[in-house]
Amino acid sequence: MINKLVDKIKKTNAPVVVGLDPMMSYIPEHITKKAFDEFGETLEGAAEAIWQYNKGIIDNTYDLIPAVKPQIAMYEQFGVPGLVAFDKTVKYAKEKDLVVIGDVKRGDIGSTSAAYATGHLGKVQVGSKKYSLFDEDFATVNPYLGTDGIKPFIDVCKEENKGLFILVKTSNPSSGEFQDRLIDGRPLYEWVGEKVAKWGEEHMGNDYSYIGAVVGATYPEMGKVLRKVMPKSYILVPGYGAQGGTADGLKPYFNEDGLGAIVNSSRGIICAYKQDKYAKFGSLNYADASRQAVIDMIEDINSIF
Amino acid sequence: MINKLVDKIKKTNAPVVVGLDPMMSYIPEHITKKAFDEFGETLEGAAEAIWQYNKGIIDNTYDLIPAVKPQIAMYEQFGVPGLVAFDKTVKYAKEKDLVVIGDVKRGDIGSTSAAYATGHLGKVQVGSKKYSLFDEDFATVNPYLGTDGIKPFIDVCKEENKGLFILVKTSNPSSGEFQDRLIDGRPLYEWVGEKVAKWGEEHMGNDYSYIGAVVGATYPEMGKVLRKVMPKSYILVPGYGAQGGTADGLKPYFNEDGLGAIVNSSRGIICAYKQDKYAKFGSLNYADASRQAVIDMIEDINSIF
Repeated sequence: MINKLVDKIKKTNAPVVVGLDPMMSYIPEHITKKAFDEFGETLEGAAEAIWQYNKGIIDNTYDLIPAVKPQIAMYEQFGVPGLVAFDKTVKYAKEKDLVVIGDVKRGDIGSTSAAYATGHLGKVQVGSKKYSLFDEDFATVNPYLGTDGIKPFIDVCKEENKGLFILVKTSNPSSGEFQDRLIDGRPLYEWVGEKVAKWGEEHMGNDYSYIGAVVGATYPEMGKVLRKVMPKSYILVPGYGAQGGTADGLKPYFNEDGLGAIVNSSRGIICAYKQDKYAKFGSLNYADASRQAVIDMIEDINSIF
Repeated sequence: MINKLVDKIKKTNAPVVVGLDPMMSYIPEHITKKAFDEFGETLEGAAEAIWQYNKGIIDNTYDLIPAVKPQIAMYEQFGVPGLVAFDKTVKYAKEKDLVVIGDVKRGDIGSTSAAYATGHLGKVQVGSKKYSLFDEDFATVNPYLGTDGIKPFIDVCKEENKGLFILVKTSNPSSGEFQDRLIDGRPLYEWVGEKVAKWGEEHMGNDYSYIGAVVGATYPEMGKVLRKVMPKSYILVPGYGAQGGTADGLKPYFNEDGLGAIVNSSRGIICAYKQDKYAKFGSLNYADASRQAVIDMIEDINSIF
């Protein structure tokens, strides 16, 4: 799957992933109204609105980009109906041949991580049958529990030809509270990055490992160090745009081959029609605004090379 | 909710939580067969078996214990139907007046943590209506992202009178890889513990904070230190029994008032009928075996006082 991701990045010339993190306040009124007319102001109504909103964005951007990254929390907050919308979104994006990164940030002790890995990347046994579940191509994972919380994910990735992005240095303002603390003179995120590189050796693709890392766009100096610590790990870079990361700051996340990083934008793309810059599209054409925002983002990022 | 938990612990004299972490291999054949007869070897069939299995255990133990802790990964691995079984289990346990600790180990950047907090502890707005979702009483949370990943959970807890258990020192063998590393001479878990104590001041119950911690039974020396670092935080202690933690080792987790800790057992209770000690019950009476195992666990833990 890392090979597919790299191929698609080369083909689209777009080291870009669109974060499908829908909030009700982002969804144009015509979509919400139609969903509520059909299902009422219910969780099912909200889930239908989310799904239709996502579908519009996927339909209008899938030919430009290699991957999407649905953030499961935005669906989980609508309970079971929300997770049905997550499931539909993942499956639809895969039908459009997009690589799907499930932003689930799971992580637990061994047997429990194994269950999460099954649910998100693997197949579950029921009697004599096997079923795929959410079936993302990649999942994000939290490293706080150490190797035996990560290993079961890697095992499933090997079986299923899938991959991970492990949190190393997150994009949020307080990420330094623990991640930046010095251990034997080096910050925790570097120690985590070293482990990611080591875990990655276990499951290599052609040029890059199936085991990647998350490093926020908001910390380019740290990105520079981590790029060297994990030369074979793809870096998923959140925090561009709405969170304050700039294209200039992205250069250190890439290797000299122009590969090695994929930059996420969520709000900046899916809610583009609410920005002054794209207001001319209007809410009815929100997905066209998203398409233009993707085009502009690709150009912005390619300007650094 | 922390007050309710403490009251129930006093009333039952049982600082014990039963981990509802069902695996298909734990479920007695008569339950699986009935579920498969009705739904086939499908995800719905697996979910029905899990739900019936849980219901039997709850029905046979709810009068003895203050709380249950369903581990969501064990449900999530069956996709959406599995999460329906999780939802039913939480609601049923609450009907039986049990405190429900959702072992979800979520944690993300601010807006995303807010969505997780809504989904697990809060209410979501849909048009003019509000809905409760999974609606656990407590949730477990991962601290790797620092304060702004935790704060949105605390905000929802304040609104909803609910609580958290934040991972500090986990029970698994490799938990020390990052958690034990020394920062200015003290291990990371102590720094996290200090933050938990500080976060806890923001949301105090009568004697204890709504914001507790997870510290594994497998590290009693560290439990002793952490008890002092977080005097007002309830400690959720996994790792007793199957993972190797013993009653003797549990003493340091409690305060002198005999409170301050609640010990989890999952496999040791829900799969008791497979142990030699409880084999006489047979698989048909698996829930009676679980009841006896709870009685024995309470006696074992109370022996330390």
